[in-house]
Amino acid sequence: MSDRINSDSSSVSPLLVVGSVAFDNVITPYGEKEHILGGAASYCSFAASYYTDVQMVGVIGNDFGDEYLDRLRSRGIDLEGVQKDESGPTFFWKGKYHENFNRRDTLDIQLNVFEKFRPDLPDSYKNTPFVLLGNIHPALQSHVLDQLESEAYVLADTIDLWIEIERNALLDLIKRINLFVINDTEAEELTEENNIILAGKKLREMGPESVIIKKGEHGAILFHQDGMFALPAYPVTELRDPTGAGDSFAGALIGRMASRNASDFNTIKEAMLYATSTASLTVEAFGCDRLESAGAKEIQERADSLQKLISVS
Amino acid sequence: MSDRINSDSSSVSPLLVVGSVAFDNVITPYGEKEHILGGAASYCSFAASYYTDVQMVGVIGNDFGDEYLDRLRSRGIDLEGVQKDESGPTFFWKGKYHENFNRRDTLDIQLNVFEKFRPDLPDSYKNTPFVLLGNIHPALQSHVLDQLESEAYVLADTIDLWIEIERNALLDLIKRINLFVINDTEAEELTEENNIILAGKKLREMGPESVIIKKGEHGAILFHQDGMFALPAYPVTELRDPTGAGDSFAGALIGRMASRNASDFNTIKEAMLYATSTASLTVEAFGCDRLESAGAKEIQERADSLQKLISVS
Repeated sequence: MSDRINSDSSSVSPLLVVGSVAFDNVITPYGEKEHILGGAASYCSFAASYYTDVQMVGVIGNDFGDEYLDRLRSRGIDLEGVQKDESGPTFFWKGKYHENFNRRDTLDIQLNVFEKFRPDLPDSYKNTPFVLLGNIHPALQSHVLDQLESEAYVLADTIDLWIEIERNALLDLIKRINLFVINDTEAEELTEENNIILAGKKLREMGPESVIIKKGEHGAILFHQDGMFALPAYPVTELRDPTGAGDSFAGALIGRMASRNASDFNTIKEAMLYATSTASLTVEAFGCDRLESAGAKEIQERADSLQKLISVS
Repeated sequence: MSDRINSDSSSVSPLLVVGSVAFDNVITPYGEKEHILGGAASYCSFAASYYTDVQMVGVIGNDFGDEYLDRLRSRGIDLEGVQKDESGPTFFWKGKYHENFNRRDTLDIQLNVFEKFRPDLPDSYKNTPFVLLGNIHPALQSHVLDQLESEAYVLADTIDLWIEIERNALLDLIKRINLFVINDTEAEELTEENNIILAGKKLREMGPESVIIKKGEHGAILFHQDGMFALPAYPVTELRDPTGAGDSFAGALIGRMASRNASDFNTIKEAMLYATSTASLTVEAFGCDRLESAGAKEIQERADSLQKLISVS
């Protein structure tokens, strides 16, 4: 077993992660890197692997070498659900971040084998008690839920694209999930509110029992029936590549919850500390590199230091 | 004595507040209001008056009626240091906030009697142990410090104008103060850093033992020799007029510290809860109206609810 963050729980639950697997070319003010292992499922799975057993579902193409699978395996990630489609290459994305990282442009996108992807679950994944629906088409996210054979705690993530072109499918999906994670501009777009407190409350009325709105360098806010919780971001001074920060946040969040086999208000709040700390590592290097190499000890140190950063006394 | 927030301290210290007094015309997406009592000294003093005895220094013109002085007096504010200059009208500012309040334009500014203002202290103010230098020319802020006859804990606030046209005077001033309060864009401008964590650390190296960087709706970060503290903003859903939010924050912050007669790390952190809660009231109405009418009980309730909002368990 790869190194794990101790959860002090006797009953660690496994986690099912569904999402894209990609190769990315990323350009930032600090340089350019090609053919980076990326995609929501990769970041989510790496992040969650510090907390619990991860079952990964995604599709890879004929250019996806064993060396990449080995990187995932070496973090203990179960790859039974990763489909290899020999008919073409892996999903490809090329993007460029601008000065201050406050804007990014997609320069190229090639869906490749991802275009025909259907997230069909192996039988051994159908009773997993925690599920992370990473960003893919909301109808495919719903298709995953249709296959589950016992009740699960479900987190879903999305992006602005689906709000714009598949709003109804997205609204159907979020009625069926427990925790919806979304960033501030997307939350405002989906709810048509220009205040994120009002947006968060409105999102809860749309279905999910809990909502987390992410504000990037300004932290995140949880909306839950038992109250709200506002958490600042971990103070990063070496921002290099924000790609995958949101996926790492989601992966660590529900990974931590699964490791404690709990989903109450206090558990989600504590998991947000780990989620923020884990995501802070991702953004300090291109791709998954820093996230993969960090180790449980460094994540725990960041979570402890974040806890101190927000403590009044 | 007007109503106060209990500090559980046996030794409440008075606070000296120096700044502008103004009449403002404010235009927001919610409407327009003319001849509002404003200026840094007014907001700072009203906010601080919920915590301690306030001695106010500023200048008013021949148009400043007794009804305005009575509003200040009714909050127990000592006006011995307020100079009346009959040679002209009070400082006037007119500004317009845009959609989402993320930008404001100054439409008119008339310095009037403020142009020749020198903040000379009455003898009875020269040994006050806590001092708030609200935003005025940094040379005038230094002039206040020159008149102090015993050691005081000094907070200074500033605006981008002085960074741009009086950088050296500002750099001289901040070497002499204890706590520097500045917003995020100004901190980046003054330090030439584009990361606020690095900016905060650099500002401390420029003199002040502590620095607070304000991020508006995203909260504030304290940089202190004993560590950092990040506090989210109070979740405001009824933003009406942001004018004076920063001044209210500064006034409540050092007012709370004076009421506890302390300036250690934990005291500043706790005072930031009150500062954020007090400022959150200011922005819910035009001018000082909401701040004046709030009452100690409502501020205490917000501070309690903010404490809950940031508590992990």
